[in-house]
This record gives sequence, C-alpha cells and structure tokens, in this order.
Amino acid sequence: MAQKPSIPKGTRDFGQLEMARRNYIFDTIKGVFSLFGFQQIETPAMENIGTLMGKYGEEGDKLLFRIQNSGEKAALAPEKGLRYDLTVPFARYVVQHREEISFPFKRFQIQPVWRADRPQKGRYREFYQCDVDVIGSNSLVGELELIQIVEEVYRRLGINVCLHLNNRKVLAGIAEVIGAPDKMMDITVAIDKLDKIGVEAVNAELSERGLSNEAIEALQPILNLSGSTTEKLTALRDVLANSETGLKGIEELETLFGLIEVTGVKLNIELDLCLARGLNYYTGAIFEVKALDAQIGSITGGGRYDNLTGIFGLPDVSGVGISFGADRIYDVLTELDLFPKELQSATQVLFATFGEEELCYALKWAKALREKGITVEVYPEPTKMKKQMGYADAKQIPFVAIVGGDEMAQNKVMLKNMASGEQKQVTLEELWQIQTNNLTK
Amino acid sequence: MAQKPSIPKGTRDFGQLEMARRNYIFDTIKGVFSLFGFQQIETPAMENIGTLMGKYGEEGDKLLFRIQNSGEKAALAPEKGLRYDLTVPFARYVVQHREEISFPFKRFQIQPVWRADRPQKGRYREFYQCDVDVIGSNSLVGELELIQIVEEVYRRLGINVCLHLNNRKVLAGIAEVIGAPDKMMDITVAIDKLDKIGVEAVNAELSERGLSNEAIEALQPILNLSGSTTEKLTALRDVLANSETGLKGIEELETLFGLIEVTGVKLNIELDLCLARGLNYYTGAIFEVKALDAQIGSITGGGRYDNLTGIFGLPDVSGVGISFGADRIYDVLTELDLFPKELQSATQVLFATFGEEELCYALKWAKALREKGITVEVYPEPTKMKKQMGYADAKQIPFVAIVGGDEMAQNKVMLKNMASGEQKQVTLEELWQIQTNNLTK
Repeated sequence: MAQKPSIPKGTRDFGQLEMARRNYIFDTIKGVFSLFGFQQIETPAMENIGTLMGKYGEEGDKLLFRIQNSGEKAALAPEKGLRYDLTVPFARYVVQHREEISFPFKRFQIQPVWRADRPQKGRYREFYQCDVDVIGSNSLVGELELIQIVEEVYRRLGINVCLHLNNRKVLAGIAEVIGAPDKMMDITVAIDKLDKIGVEAVNAELSERGLSNEAIEALQPILNLSGSTTEKLTALRDVLANSETGLKGIEELETLFGLIEVTGVKLNIELDLCLARGLNYYTGAIFEVKALDAQIGSITGGGRYDNLTGIFGLPDVSGVGISFGADRIYDVLTELDLFPKELQSATQVLFATFGEEELCYALKWAKALREKGITVEVYPEPTKMKKQMGYADAKQIPFVAIVGGDEMAQNKVMLKNMASGEQKQVTLEELWQIQTNNLTK
Repeated sequence: MAQKPSIPKGTRDFGQLEMARRNYIFDTIKGVFSLFGFQQIETPAMENIGTLMGKYGEEGDKLLFRIQNSGEKAALAPEKGLRYDLTVPFARYVVQHREEISFPFKRFQIQPVWRADRPQKGRYREFYQCDVDVIGSNSLVGELELIQIVEEVYRRLGINVCLHLNNRKVLAGIAEVIGAPDKMMDITVAIDKLDKIGVEAVNAELSERGLSNEAIEALQPILNLSGSTTEKLTALRDVLANSETGLKGIEELETLFGLIEVTGVKLNIELDLCLARGLNYYTGAIFEVKALDAQIGSITGGGRYDNLTGIFGLPDVSGVGISFGADRIYDVLTELDLFPKELQSATQVLFATFGEEELCYALKWAKALREKGITVEVYPEPTKMKKQMGYADAKQIPFVAIVGGDEMAQNKVMLKNMASGEQKQVTLEELWQIQTNNLTK
C-alpha cells in the first residue's frame, strides 16, 4: 500500500470525541456570551495583506501565512494572508461596517487563526480563538460583564479559577512617579517575574533595563504592597498622589470593585500589580485568568483599549475584550477529568440484528425512537453478533437492542446494558422510557 | 479619514443576524445528523499540496489556493493548499486514521472550503460545506438513512422538497444496452436537459456527441418512461434484461424503495432517470434535492461511491454521502420568509437607566434574570433615554425595562413592550414570568 497520507506540521485533525469535547467548551462559552447579549460574527479566513501587515510587529509579519496569487499574478507579492488573530479583523469589521452597527457593539467571534510559528508542544499553526468584546463605550459595566462572563463560564465548566486584575493607567502612573515614564513596559516585564525570581533579582533586572537607583528605590514600597484590595488601593493612592493618570487608574479600579460587590460576583479576584500583559494597545483594565488546580498559565485574558480601530482610520473608539484559550481549557478539563462522561457517546442505543427481516423491524423501531428524540443507530447489516457488539463497544454505546425471531414474535427487543452486561426483553414503550430517563438524569 | 478597509473579493463578513440565521441552519442539520449517530470531525484548513493536487481535475488544480512557503523556502513551489472540498480531506482522514476508526464510520463535517473561482452572484471563494457520509458498508441502509435525514432536516426547516433518485449502475446499463457503453456520461449530460429542451433537441445532441442512430433509437423507450416508480422499474427491467450492471442497479433501487416503504418515509421521492450528477466517482445511488417553492436548483446532493479512499492507497471501501448547500438553503429560507422571527434578537430585555444608582439597581436585576436563563442587556451608561431606546430598536430587543427613582422606590421597573408601546410597572418576579412565558411560546 502507498505511504499513509499526512497533514501539515502544526495542524490537527479532530476526531469525534475531541470534537464532542471541543463543542462542549465552545457551546458553554457561547451560551454565556449570549446570556449577556453578545452576538456572533464571522470574518473571512483571508484578509487583504494590507489589513494584516504591520499590525503584529516585525515578528508577526514574518509569521503571517500568505496566499499565492492565482494565474498570471502568481509571481507578484501575495495580496492576501490568513487571519493571524481575531482582533485586527474585528477592528477592520467595525470600521468597514460602522454605518450598520449599533454601538455599544457587543460581539463575539469563535474562529481558527493561523501562524507560521515553529510548531511545538501546545503550540499549533492553526488554532481557535474565542473573543468577546464590547466596543463604543467607556463604561466600566463592560469590564464588569466580562468578569461576570468569566465567573459563569468557569462555574459551568467546573474549573476553579482566580482572575488577576490590574490597570495600565496604574502601571503608567507608577513609572511616572518613580521618574521613569518611558520605562513602563520594562518595569512591568521585570516585576512580572517577582514571584519566580524574588525582589533582589527583579531589582537587578530593572537596573539592567536602565532604571536609576532612585527609581528602583522608589519602586520598593509598591513591590511590597500587601493586604486586602482596599488596603492595596489606599496605599497606592498615596504613592500615586502626583500622577493624574495613576489616580485615574485607581479610580477605575475602585469603581470596578464597587460594581463587583454590588452585583455579588463570587469569583476569586486578585488585584495584581505585577500583571502587565504584553500587548501595547491596552490602556485601562487588564485581566488574566488562571486555573487554580492545574499548572498551565493563563487560560483567559484581555483588557481595555482606547484606539483599536484607529489603525483603520476610526479614532477614539474605546472597547474592552477578553479571549478564552480553548486549547488550554481543553487541557485543563482533560487533566482534571472534568469533561462530562456522556460526551463519549452521542448514540444511546444500537440495534443489532440477525437477518433481513429483523433489520427492517429494527429500522421501524429506530424511526419511532428518533421521533421521540432518542439518538439511535441500526447496524446496517445483519452480520456476526460479535462484530455488531464490537462496534457498540468501540463507540461506547451504552445499550444494544438485539433483535431475533423470538423478540419479533413478542413485539420486543432484547436490551443489553453494555456496562453491567444485564439484559432483558422490553417493549418499544419500555425502551423509550428507559432512554428518556437516562437523558434527563 | 483613511479609505474604508475591505475584504478580498469573493469572501464575506457575516453580521449578527446572518450568523444567527446560519447557525439556525447548521444547528438544525447537526441535530438531525446526531439523531442518526453521525459524529462530527474537523480537518485542518491547510492540506499538503500533494493531498489536493490531481483530485479535482485540471480545472480544479487551477482553482486551489496555495500557501506561500515561509522563510528561505518562499521561492519554491508551495507545499500547502487550502481545503477545496470536504470529500478529499475526509478520504485522507479515513486512510490516515483507519486504525482508530470503527467501521462503518458515520461522520459529518461542517467547515469552510476555498476555491479561486471567478466570484459572481451566489458563487464565493470561501463557503461552507455540510457533508454527511457513512463509509465502510455496502448496505443500502446507508442510502435509507440519508433519505430519512433529508426528510427530517427539511421538515424541521419547513421547506417543501422533492428528492430525485437515480442509480449510476442503471445509467451504465442503459449505455451498455444501446451499444454505447463508453458514452454513459455523454448520454446522461444530454438527457439531463430533457425537461428544458425536449426530445428532438436531446436526440440532436446525442448525435453530435457521437451516438449512432441505432443507439439513439434504442434509447427512446427509456426517455419516454412514465408512470409510477414500480411501473418505471418494471419497464426498465425489460430494457436492461441483457445488462448485468443495469439489473444490479434496478435491484438496488427496488431494495431501497422497499426500505423507504417499510420505514414510512413521507418525503416526496421521484425516480429520475435523467439525474446524472457530474462527479465521476459515484457508482450506485445518486440523489439530488430540490426546493419545490423556489427556483434555485439543487440544495442537497450526493451518492454512493465504491473507491473514495483508493486515491490514498486504501481500495474497496464503499460509502455513501450527501452534502447540504448551506448558502442555497439560506437563500430559500430568506425567499420564503421561513426563518424564525426570534432569530432577530437574542436579547429579551434591555435595561435603560437614568443615573448611576439606577444603573447599579439594573445590574442586580440583570444578574437575577440571567440566573433564570433570561438573556438580558444593561445599557452601560445612564445616558439620554432616546439613545437607549434607539439601541433597543436597532437590535430589535422586544422589551425595555426602564429604571427611574419611582420604580426603585417600589422595587419595580417600568416594562415597555417595544412592539405595542404598552408599558406597566412590574416586579422582578413578574418580569421573570413574562419573559419565561415568551421563551416557551
């Protein structure tokens, strides 16, 4: 036989069980998004190359998958590229369709993206993103709702999480008051490592990154902030007394924590001054969600941006959004064994038969059961019983209805519970009752 | 302002209403596929170019979108291409994963495909296909179940359809008995036009295509076949008496019509000897479904193939499959105004407020309602009432809950029915009851 065919490296096939599990994640997330009035959009896999170029930095440009032109233009520079994320196409969408959109625009989008990254464990060249954003409003109700969405999604999935919250204005304020306003990203990158490498090493790194000793010293009280959220905010307010931006950040955090309290959010939320997030378009709140019972890093993240659509000529549109990492959530649910067991088989009953007449009998029963909403398969040939049972085993179908001459004569089937091995003759009505009870369990 | 950004020609953005409607189609189809035990798989957007090349004829090769190699290999011939249909990736999947698959393998797949076709009305460079196949069994129960699926999908969608059924073996038999066994495709292409151009013109075309006068004369009784399915089959059996292949085709049709009768299929089914279908990998039953109340051509089609995976080195695996044309189904549902009205707005209630305190009050109510499964939005700022009402109008939200000081004092909201203009003060419990009743209506 010829060599087995394969797929490009960094891409994946998803079989039935993986798809059932992925759909469980997507459907859970979509259900929660919808409950808050977010609506789905989709954009094309290909964008004009000009839409994508220069939006992800120099490194990002290199990682774009470009589509070769067809026909005589094949030799020219590609005009199209594959979607690299959902954020830039969303910004493009908002600008292109701004006349049709009612703002605030609450949208979600669940689609694959492609990156010509070096494939490695957990990093793929094709993967799905699940983004939810509200754009066209400055209100912190946006932040609140995203936090409520995080709470509800992970409650439904059964994953214990902690949401880390910070504000870019606070980070900018800190850089300002320690006299290094242009070093905000350097400072945040360094203090991001506090947990891992300790204060001494962080200070050494800050010095390497060009911060003066005075600035580093001024930063120490902030690195050592502890206590409750209120205590941290009070202490910060003193530190940032001379930074207008910083105080605005504190105010936003206070308002947001107020809304969180008013609406009784039970989610684990930590004010984390070491949270920075790399993307430099964030301008207000930033979030990151970590699973508490798995070592996997962030599984959801996002923040407030003030000028996402500016790159396409529509300035001053503020928005806030988060992205759920479906692959990582999949890994957490697998590691913690949290996928519902019923995802393993969609089919509730397989009919197994001994002859053509029995097959017709089974097809009639199958029709009647499907009309009641029961998922049924009929093994398509009256072949060896072992083969038919093997099929049920492989697909983890919980019940097999065996049809022989005896059963037909009595208007019954022999129903076998594949887990217990137990079997008994049942009528159509009884079979339907058993399956309906299993469905609603 | 800069020029409005755009998307590549032949591609589309889908806004919220379009997405809700597309999801309605996909969810309906998926629900029916699942009821019959078909399970979803997904394959990558990119396939190795060798997997795709030569599978769609010379014309097809030209229509493949090729991905430029990255880095130093950029100048070389592309190694990857975008999926052109779901059939070839499915065949590749079956061969690649044959050790993990339990046959008969019942799978469905709903994903976009890409073709570098000249864009025109109703023809896109990116569009979704919805394919359902059972592979690894010769049993005509496969054909029966696909027919039952067609029946149930269109019953749920409310579209009146007729399924045209034919069998490639019958067509081959006809070509054989009229003495032109190598002309099967020419004959079918010509007689496919019988309805449009009449017998005379068809005969002229057959002559042009190289059929002898004797062959054309021998074909006439078949062109004139009429009556019930049983009458047609009986007449055909006489005509095809000397063709083993033809008689096998008749037998398959008879068995299938027998199964259709046994299981009480109510679908409009017509034995259509003029149905040919272009793809030359079909070897048995062929189907095409037409909407009766819309002029749009085929909205679903497929057939039996005996050697789909042979191209990847796994011969003799028989299967049968059909494909639902989502774009055309969308057009039919639009033309006949059959989309459910509730798809226009997912949101049931919008809270509109006059001040910060009212906003907090609304956020608490919203939380309580969402816990009951009611889809609620809170307008994020206590701005002008006209603006908030305009938002509800634009999103076609049926109810607005207005919160002012009066309402707060009484622990109520003013609920406005946006269709009738009617408004009354209601408690949280009353609001919940009203919305729950609307949901279950």
